[in-house]
Amino acid sequence: MEIHASIPALRTALKGRSRIVFVPTMGNLHAGHITLMREARQHGDTVVASIFVNRLQFGPNEDFDKYPRTFAADCAQLEAAGVDVLFAPTETDLYPEPQQYQVDPPGIQNQLEGEFRPGHFRGVATVVLKLFNIVQPQIALFGKKDYQQLMILRNMTRQLALPIEIVGSDTVRADDGLALSSRNGYLTPDERQEAPRLSRVLAGIREAAAAGERDFAKLERAAVAELNAHGWRSDYVAIRRQSDLQTPEPGDRELVVLAASRLGTPRLIDNLEFQLPA
Amino acid sequence: MEIHASIPALRTALKGRSRIVFVPTMGNLHAGHITLMREARQHGDTVVASIFVNRLQFGPNEDFDKYPRTFAADCAQLEAAGVDVLFAPTETDLYPEPQQYQVDPPGIQNQLEGEFRPGHFRGVATVVLKLFNIVQPQIALFGKKDYQQLMILRNMTRQLALPIEIVGSDTVRADDGLALSSRNGYLTPDERQEAPRLSRVLAGIREAAAAGERDFAKLERAAVAELNAHGWRSDYVAIRRQSDLQTPEPGDRELVVLAASRLGTPRLIDNLEFQLPA
Repeated sequence: MEIHASIPALRTALKGRSRIVFVPTMGNLHAGHITLMREARQHGDTVVASIFVNRLQFGPNEDFDKYPRTFAADCAQLEAAGVDVLFAPTETDLYPEPQQYQVDPPGIQNQLEGEFRPGHFRGVATVVLKLFNIVQPQIALFGKKDYQQLMILRNMTRQLALPIEIVGSDTVRADDGLALSSRNGYLTPDERQEAPRLSRVLAGIREAAAAGERDFAKLERAAVAELNAHGWRSDYVAIRRQSDLQTPEPGDRELVVLAASRLGTPRLIDNLEFQLPA
Repeated sequence: MEIHASIPALRTALKGRSRIVFVPTMGNLHAGHITLMREARQHGDTVVASIFVNRLQFGPNEDFDKYPRTFAADCAQLEAAGVDVLFAPTETDLYPEPQQYQVDPPGIQNQLEGEFRPGHFRGVATVVLKLFNIVQPQIALFGKKDYQQLMILRNMTRQLALPIEIVGSDTVRADDGLALSSRNGYLTPDERQEAPRLSRVLAGIREAAAAGERDFAKLERAAVAELNAHGWRSDYVAIRRQSDLQTPEPGDRELVVLAASRLGTPRLIDNLEFQLPA
């Protein structure tokens, strides 16, 4: 695996490469990321990963400096997963000057995750656009675990006419249903036992909708109540349409339920897509 | 000259073309635009022009519908100037849905021209980024006449790591110094006689600075006073540094003086770069 920190060196390395598939990360990789890398391999000839902890997407209450950096272990995993080229810029490589030109996503950036992480999606959109311009992939993969991020990047890519196909990759889960996340490592053993409730609650909403329940607000309230009755502190459980995460309107059938809730210290997020019958 | 309206058709036409030079326009072409096209020819192998009247960059007080559309005459001029490919999308081609993802330039977007044209530079930056993503040129040319636009697009391109070289092209002037502009056509014969004063006033500031004058505020006030004494209504005359159009700080040597002023109905803009001695 080639590793490049500088933009010109990466550009030279990628010159003439066909069918580039790109998977951006912030490092601190777990099995979910590695599944993304293996999936990337099936979409093209050259798999490029990036590791960059993006200061722009950290909110005022989020600790950029304490974000785990595990570069050597990450490299070993990427190499084993068959990644061809790793782009690992320093902050000076990617932000040699204050980033004044940013992508401004629409109002959804301030809802759901955005309500609790002001400026987060503006920072995500800006760094991913910049990485896209550097790597110039034909395809980019993002996990569905960060569903709102995937939606925003897919819509940004389409609306800015970037010649890139965005692929959403299914969330990797533990056997008990818990979505893999680096944050799971912060759970106590008792919390780890309780944690799969989040995915069960989401599955319950999908089942209720399949059984004909259309009072989504009631389903959302019941889900929050169940979580909070078991020691969670929930930020939201929200049923939205997949395309833009707006509140479903009559006729919308492609839906997703998204949730964020704290169990002890860590804040876990999860989501589940579902379809309403025609 | 090939003409394409659809994005996929243009992409197909440009596939495999080497060294693409791009000159975006809103049509209604005059000799200044044509000079840009001939200059483009010297920078690469394939000269691509675009004509698109961009609704996003029109302010609430600016009449999008009344902007002159002279497509047939424009095509004839582009063809004669040796343009290889014209991209002329309809609004549905370029904005098939409301443009929700936009580039947000920094505060300078609300100064100088931006003070009088709210949202203008956000609209310019967004459409040019989108055109860049469609055409994917190696080089793009913009006239220095719209100096603030050139500065914003140059800085956007660098900050978003687009692999595109931005070239600023010298303003084309009539023999008496008046910068060419489609707006000159709206001047009465008397106004047309008076109009070159704008460039003379700017040249006077350059000379005063060369002669050692460093009280820029005084020079700006005197320039506005002279114009307004001759029937102009001036929006601004401002000495700024070239790189980001901020107020010069001690040590800044690469400067530009920019002006916007109404003479009768039309609002004319002009600018002049100059250097301070070390």
